[in-house]
Amino acid sequence: MTRKLYVLNGPNLDMLGQREPEMYGVATLRDVEAVCARVAAEVGFDLFFAQSNAEHEIIDWLHDAYRDAAPVVINPAGLSFRSVPVLDALSMLRSPIVEIHLTNIHARDEAHRHSLMSPVVDTVIAGAGVLGYELAIRAANSLSAAAEN
Amino acid sequence: MTRKLYVLNGPNLDMLGQREPEMYGVATLRDVEAVCARVAAEVGFDLFFAQSNAEHEIIDWLHDAYRDAAPVVINPAGLSFRSVPVLDALSMLRSPIVEIHLTNIHARDEAHRHSLMSPVVDTVIAGAGVLGYELAIRAANSLSAAAEN
Amino acid sequence: MTRKLYVLNGPNLDMLGQREPEMYGVATLRDVEAVCARVAAEVGFDLFFAQSNAEHEIIDWLHDAYRDAAPVVINPAGLSFRSVPVLDALSMLRSPIVEIHLTNIHARDEAHRHSLMSPVVDTVIAGAGVLGYELAIRAANSLSAAAEN
Amino acid sequence: MTRKLYVLNGPNLDMLGQREPEMYGVATLRDVEAVCARVAAEVGFDLFFAQSNAEHEIIDWLHDAYRDAAPVVINPAGLSFRSVPVLDALSMLRSPIVEIHLTNIHARDEAHRHSLMSPVVDTVIAGAGVLGYELAIRAANSLSAAAEN
Amino acid sequence: MTRKLYVLNGPNLDMLGQREPEMYGVATLRDVEAVCARVAAEVGFDLFFAQSNAEHEIIDWLHDAYRDAAPVVINPAGLSFRSVPVLDALSMLRSPIVEIHLTNIHARDEAHRHSLMSPVVDTVIAGAGVLGYELAIRAANSLSAAAEN
Amino acid sequence: MTRKLYVLNGPNLDMLGQREPEMYGVATLRDVEAVCARVAAEVGFDLFFAQSNAEHEIIDWLHDAYRDAAPVVINPAGLSFRSVPVLDALSMLRSPIVEIHLTNIHARDEAHRHSLMSPVVDTVIAGAGVLGYELAIRAANSLSAAAEN
Amino acid sequence: MTRKLYVLNGPNLDMLGQREPEMYGVATLRDVEAVCARVAAEVGFDLFFAQSNAEHEIIDWLHDAYRDAAPVVINPAGLSFRSVPVLDALSMLRSPIVEIHLTNIHARDEAHRHSLMSPVVDTVIAGAGVLGYELAIRAANSLSAAAEN
Amino acid sequence: MTRKLYVLNGPNLDMLGQREPEMYGVATLRDVEAVCARVAAEVGFDLFFAQSNAEHEIIDWLHDAYRDAAPVVINPAGLSFRSVPVLDALSMLRSPIVEIHLTNIHARDEAHRHSLMSPVVDTVIAGAGVLGYELAIRAANSLSAAAEN
Amino acid sequence: MTRKLYVLNGPNLDMLGQREPEMYGVATLRDVEAVCARVAAEVGFDLFFAQSNAEHEIIDWLHDAYRDAAPVVINPAGLSFRSVPVLDALSMLRSPIVEIHLTNIHARDEAHRHSLMSPVVDTVIAGAGVLGYELAIRAANSLSAAAEN
Amino acid sequence: MTRKLYVLNGPNLDMLGQREPEMYGVATLRDVEAVCARVAAEVGFDLFFAQSNAEHEIIDWLHDAYRDAAPVVINPAGLSFRSVPVLDALSMLRSPIVEIHLTNIHARDEAHRHSLMSPVVDTVIAGAGVLGYELAIRAANSLSAAAEN
Amino acid sequence: MTRKLYVLNGPNLDMLGQREPEMYGVATLRDVEAVCARVAAEVGFDLFFAQSNAEHEIIDWLHDAYRDAAPVVINPAGLSFRSVPVLDALSMLRSPIVEIHLTNIHARDEAHRHSLMSPVVDTVIAGAGVLGYELAIRAANSLSAAAEN
Amino acid sequence: MTRKLYVLNGPNLDMLGQREPEMYGVATLRDVEAVCARVAAEVGFDLFFAQSNAEHEIIDWLHDAYRDAAPVVINPAGLSFRSVPVLDALSMLRSPIVEIHLTNIHARDEAHRHSLMSPVVDTVIAGAGVLGYELAIRAANSLSAAAEN
Repeated sequence: MTRKLYVLNGPNLDMLGQREPEMYGVATLRDVEAVCARVAAEVGFDLFFAQSNAEHEIIDWLHDAYRDAAPVVINPAGLSFRSVPVLDALSMLRSPIVEIHLTNIHARDEAHRHSLMSPVVDTVIAGAGVLGYELAIRAANSLSAAAEN
Repeated sequence: MTRKLYVLNGPNLDMLGQREPEMYGVATLRDVEAVCARVAAEVGFDLFFAQSNAEHEIIDWLHDAYRDAAPVVINPAGLSFRSVPVLDALSMLRSPIVEIHLTNIHARDEAHRHSLMSPVVDTVIAGAGVLGYELAIRAANSLSAAAEN
Repeated sequence: MTRKLYVLNGPNLDMLGQREPEMYGVATLRDVEAVCARVAAEVGFDLFFAQSNAEHEIIDWLHDAYRDAAPVVINPAGLSFRSVPVLDALSMLRSPIVEIHLTNIHARDEAHRHSLMSPVVDTVIAGAGVLGYELAIRAANSLSAAAEN
Repeated sequence: MTRKLYVLNGPNLDMLGQREPEMYGVATLRDVEAVCARVAAEVGFDLFFAQSNAEHEIIDWLHDAYRDAAPVVINPAGLSFRSVPVLDALSMLRSPIVEIHLTNIHARDEAHRHSLMSPVVDTVIAGAGVLGYELAIRAANSLSAAAEN
Repeated sequence: MTRKLYVLNGPNLDMLGQREPEMYGVATLRDVEAVCARVAAEVGFDLFFAQSNAEHEIIDWLHDAYRDAAPVVINPAGLSFRSVPVLDALSMLRSPIVEIHLTNIHARDEAHRHSLMSPVVDTVIAGAGVLGYELAIRAANSLSAAAEN
Repeated sequence: MTRKLYVLNGPNLDMLGQREPEMYGVATLRDVEAVCARVAAEVGFDLFFAQSNAEHEIIDWLHDAYRDAAPVVINPAGLSFRSVPVLDALSMLRSPIVEIHLTNIHARDEAHRHSLMSPVVDTVIAGAGVLGYELAIRAANSLSAAAEN
Repeated sequence: MTRKLYVLNGPNLDMLGQREPEMYGVATLRDVEAVCARVAAEVGFDLFFAQSNAEHEIIDWLHDAYRDAAPVVINPAGLSFRSVPVLDALSMLRSPIVEIHLTNIHARDEAHRHSLMSPVVDTVIAGAGVLGYELAIRAANSLSAAAEN
Repeated sequence: MTRKLYVLNGPNLDMLGQREPEMYGVATLRDVEAVCARVAAEVGFDLFFAQSNAEHEIIDWLHDAYRDAAPVVINPAGLSFRSVPVLDALSMLRSPIVEIHLTNIHARDEAHRHSLMSPVVDTVIAGAGVLGYELAIRAANSLSAAAEN
Repeated sequence: MTRKLYVLNGPNLDMLGQREPEMYGVATLRDVEAVCARVAAEVGFDLFFAQSNAEHEIIDWLHDAYRDAAPVVINPAGLSFRSVPVLDALSMLRSPIVEIHLTNIHARDEAHRHSLMSPVVDTVIAGAGVLGYELAIRAANSLSAAAEN
Repeated sequence: MTRKLYVLNGPNLDMLGQREPEMYGVATLRDVEAVCARVAAEVGFDLFFAQSNAEHEIIDWLHDAYRDAAPVVINPAGLSFRSVPVLDALSMLRSPIVEIHLTNIHARDEAHRHSLMSPVVDTVIAGAGVLGYELAIRAANSLSAAAEN
Repeated sequence: MTRKLYVLNGPNLDMLGQREPEMYGVATLRDVEAVCARVAAEVGFDLFFAQSNAEHEIIDWLHDAYRDAAPVVINPAGLSFRSVPVLDALSMLRSPIVEIHLTNIHARDEAHRHSLMSPVVDTVIAGAGVLGYELAIRAANSLSAAAEN
Repeated sequence: MTRKLYVLNGPNLDMLGQREPEMYGVATLRDVEAVCARVAAEVGFDLFFAQSNAEHEIIDWLHDAYRDAAPVVINPAGLSFRSVPVLDALSMLRSPIVEIHLTNIHARDEAHRHSLMSPVVDTVIAGAGVLGYELAIRAANSLSAAAEN
């Protein structure tokens, strides 16, 4: 029986590859999805991969993950720093959550330095670029396994 | 001739009853609507009851309330703490506004303690659970009556 | 067998009706007591209603409420913002506490905006004027009922 | 060959003329659009003029402007003060950006005083009312001309 | 017909002359009263002079002054820095208020530097020692005369 | 010839043993007095032991201690954190002062963490429970002896 | 009959063109004056254009503008951030005030980011370079016309 | 032999009577000088009365006062809040200093609330209007007499 | 069977008696050790007494105490205020911890006022000089006895 | 030719497995080393694995890594939050740095929440337990490969 | 060919030797000038030495230094802490700047502790008294030599 | 008879010349020592020159300097910003102390901007590179001479 995994991406990540490539790299969101599909298959997750510029869509997907009791890998992007509605939706989850940022947010300007989400997630990975998604899925797999024991 | 009343609910309240029941209780949003319907009928309000995870829908409904010059009972949930667009929409109203929170937000963590909305509303009720909606409608009724005199 | 309810009022509330009526309204403390007496009788509470300008009298009455295991409705007035002794006396209680303010304190100046008491009470009602006392007693009744179950 | 110009308007600006006219004036958003159409035509811009209460629509339009390499005049309204997703979308642009506010936000309350957007735009104009849109388009035109040299 | 003047003194001022004379001087509270009696007589005030270590007595006297519509000269001493109940009682007054401190509080440590009372009084005199009481009564007299015109 | 020692206790300490015993322990104020009586007798102090919920009584007793030039052991309880009048009364003393807290206040919430009194006392003992009173009296004895040399 | 307009420039602007041209551009203060002269003539203002490194000269000119009831365009330069005397002189004016900065001060370092003047002016224009002076004069003209109606 | 007294007035006070009369009153600086001349003569001071918009002139006069060892009454006006050079010149004096403000600065906005000068002066008088100058000269006289003893 | 007690002393305490004797007294660390040896023997502790200027040695000794499940009396000296490694080593302990300071740190400058350690210890004693060590050992003994019951 | 990798562990990590296992887990530092040895071998790194309670040893090892131009995986533990010397040593490196924390530090208390090191490292992984070391080595490998291209 | 050196002195330094000699020493500004003349001659600088109480004169001299591309030694005195116009004039320079203070400003009160100028100068020397001027000229000489290579 | 001088260098300074040469220059610590040896010999000091990455060694050397009553030139490097133990060791000294930094720390990032040591030293020299050591020794010599008189 398959286990579901949500990989969710926040605002402006649809522009990946075009958007400030000196900061975010040249890989596109399709490239990221391909990496996720490969690793999810390897560790046995049924992948739901999505991106939205709308806070409410992210929230709806988190509600779905709640109903599926599925682990979540989330790159909240610009929503990381101020969105209490997304924070509340994450707080609701009982399954593992891995927060990922392509860049090392701790090395950025004041507005992008402190994620509001981090205190309610299990694991945070920042600054590993696209590889970070692979690491995040492996962490989610490990956390799920631990939770089942 | 009927008077209209808007009871508006913000993000994640669609999950009421499932979401962290040790904090928010087991009543669902349908239960809340039933309470509101009963009390609105008793005091003579024509009830509009709605919930949305999208900030812009909340704003649209507040614009409707503005056009109807109707009192508003609002539980802005996660939008309470950061949303200036909702604050601006509330500031526009000339009819009574009652802000309600199911939990006592003043006893929560820093991110959930200070509602940005409170300075522009008339009345704030926090920590009375579902009963708070009943109290809020009674307060809205009383404020409307006072405003008409 | 009757259940006791304490309704306590802090400094300067003896001047209600005279004191800045544009902010606090024209009802006097006698009017407030009459409202409380009516509602307390309706829901079956044996009412103790008092006001003091002295912090230590408020504390003594809270000790009485502790010994009676009685719910408390309190308008701490100017003591709300700085009095740790009253905060400590409230923390001691195991019965429901409803904090009430005639005005919406969240819309006032810095010195009157953040009640030190709110984190240790169950329910906060602000800005509903004298009606707030009625709502507060109903909330106290509901909380008492819930606690007994 | 025509040059495109985006004039974007944030939440609640659809209520212009009705909303707190003592602060925002009596001109409607249609009046603003007429001013912009006239000035854009005069300086040779192909105008895209839009308003939304939804953050994600603003972001989508900024992505369009990115693809068109077009200058942007933006009144982010309530999104000015907290929206990192809009900030990130603006940061992506390589074309000129003029931020405009109808009122002098620096003279307003704490919640409306510091625009998060200002550090990443080229020019800020605040407090010139509807005329500000005309000035902003002229500034955008001048910045575009300078960038082409 | 005589005009009443309240000269009120807060906690620890009963120890004047004994208490840290290098800071507060060697004059006793009786000496201060004598100065006030002389000046009050000279300008035609009926003097009420009192001191208390109890916040509630100060509040009661301010209520009396409210009922008498009498000007107040007050040295709130240690209550200056934290007492919102005294602040509220002062705010209630419609007659002139002169705040006086024997020492220059602005030159003292953090806990004694910012009087919470100053924003609601008419005149503040600090650091003139016992002479300050004479100056304060003259200021109260002048303010009363101006208010009567 | 006997030497006097004041052991003073602030608000709510009359409820010791009943009040939050998981935090404050089960010993009553009578038990504390018995410990103090025993140790005071042992080291040769004539004990004055008192408790009050009223700030002004604490101040009056400190004035008495000033006149007796007697050392003071004080548990200011809730007055520790905000009372400038008590701070001023302590500052007046020339005899040794030992401040005591039953709990380790440094490990408590923000409102109970920083005693305003500590900078003007000689010794602070926190978190030793009832034993702390014994230690405090021994410290007062030692400080008195040192001061006499 | 001519209307007067003051265009005032603060410290170091006499070095324009030489001073950090990568930030301030290569136009000199004479170039700026030429632009102002052209636009002022076009809209019918009698131009007074001046620069000073001395705070008191700026103040004197603002007093002149007060006596002439003339609108003011001011680039306070380094005085923007700390000078309360200039702020007070601006506060005195009843005619329109437009504050202008050549650079986008909101994108600069902490010491140059928040103009103390902005809360008391009508319009703020920052980051439009020399064109900003033209925009500012047009805004001043529009504000004057509005004030006359 | 006459004793000298400096009465110094800071920026914008030359506009007294015209400048925001609802805040500063209708008396002109000539009126203030007349009051000072009368009182100085009465108590036996040789008056030097001056005003300047230039910080350096105030400093030069304070150097003169230093050389004359003369008491100073100073209304630093807008220089009160930020001028360290004036603060340093005041710190140099060994003769009495009385700081005076026409309005109650403690009741004003953040930029006008905390005088940087107050910690180094002897006496502060704020909010007594023109009468304040009379009180200040009497205080300077009393302080001089005390210093001579 | 003997119980072990660790008395640990941080940086610069080897200079006790020489180092700022007006603040720290004339007793040397040998004198302190002698006091500790006497009291430890009296209450039945096997004393380990040590001092180090090296953070890592303090940590190693705390690891030893962890393995011995022994109570600790610690004067962290300069490490009190910033050392998270020592804080972490203390947090690991399950046996009683008494923090001691020779001086009343709460009365010192900002850099020496707030011990980072205090929230994780049981008891804090400050300002009792060498006697403080005796009191601390007695407190450690009492806490150990309580923990054994 | 082998590539070197430094895996460095800060204070108290020698106690892993014993130290607060409910927070840090039951794996020992030997277990962590075994994981690192396996993964380093797999990706072709020559592993240097070490732990120290002494800041200066960590610095010395970082100097070695500098000379070897080798990537570093570092768990600075308690040094993360305050040690500028370690920060300076990390800043010196030109090879990749991955910072790792066993727990999610962002969810901890104020003293353990913000790593001073994060702004100068490439990647941060927190809250993945021992697996985090594996992920960190993979990230270091990926960063090294990228740097070589 | 001679190289020019500016040694500039801010407000109140004309009073050196008289002004608070316990803090600033007994040397006069003439003595300082003599030291500077000797050292400048020794290292081959053509000295311009000046002092002013007027901010605008300091700015004018810095403009001269800019035109001469000459190094500057500046003791901004009271202007150090708040003057953005002087900061801006210093920022304009491309030649070496050495900031000097007679006293160790870092050991003074809050108002005199943080020089606004330091981030834009090359070297800061504080607390070396008159000798500091000699050291500063040597540093300016060394920086000039380095810049020429 | 020779006078001793301690020149002490903190963490990472052993890497001078290699470490971020664009910031710290290419001179090595041996070069610095050579400069110090030359100048010390010239002014007649017996030089002790040392560097350590270990805080406790710095402290031990400061204790030696205390016993030798010798002046100290110290570059605390990364220890400057947080080490209270080094601060305490410096506070103990009665001989002159000169603090030196190769770079202008006031122009660096927040973590490197404010030295904790500066308030207890005599002279601070920052940003003069290796020359700073020469200037520091000359300052130490001058301070020693002054202290002997």
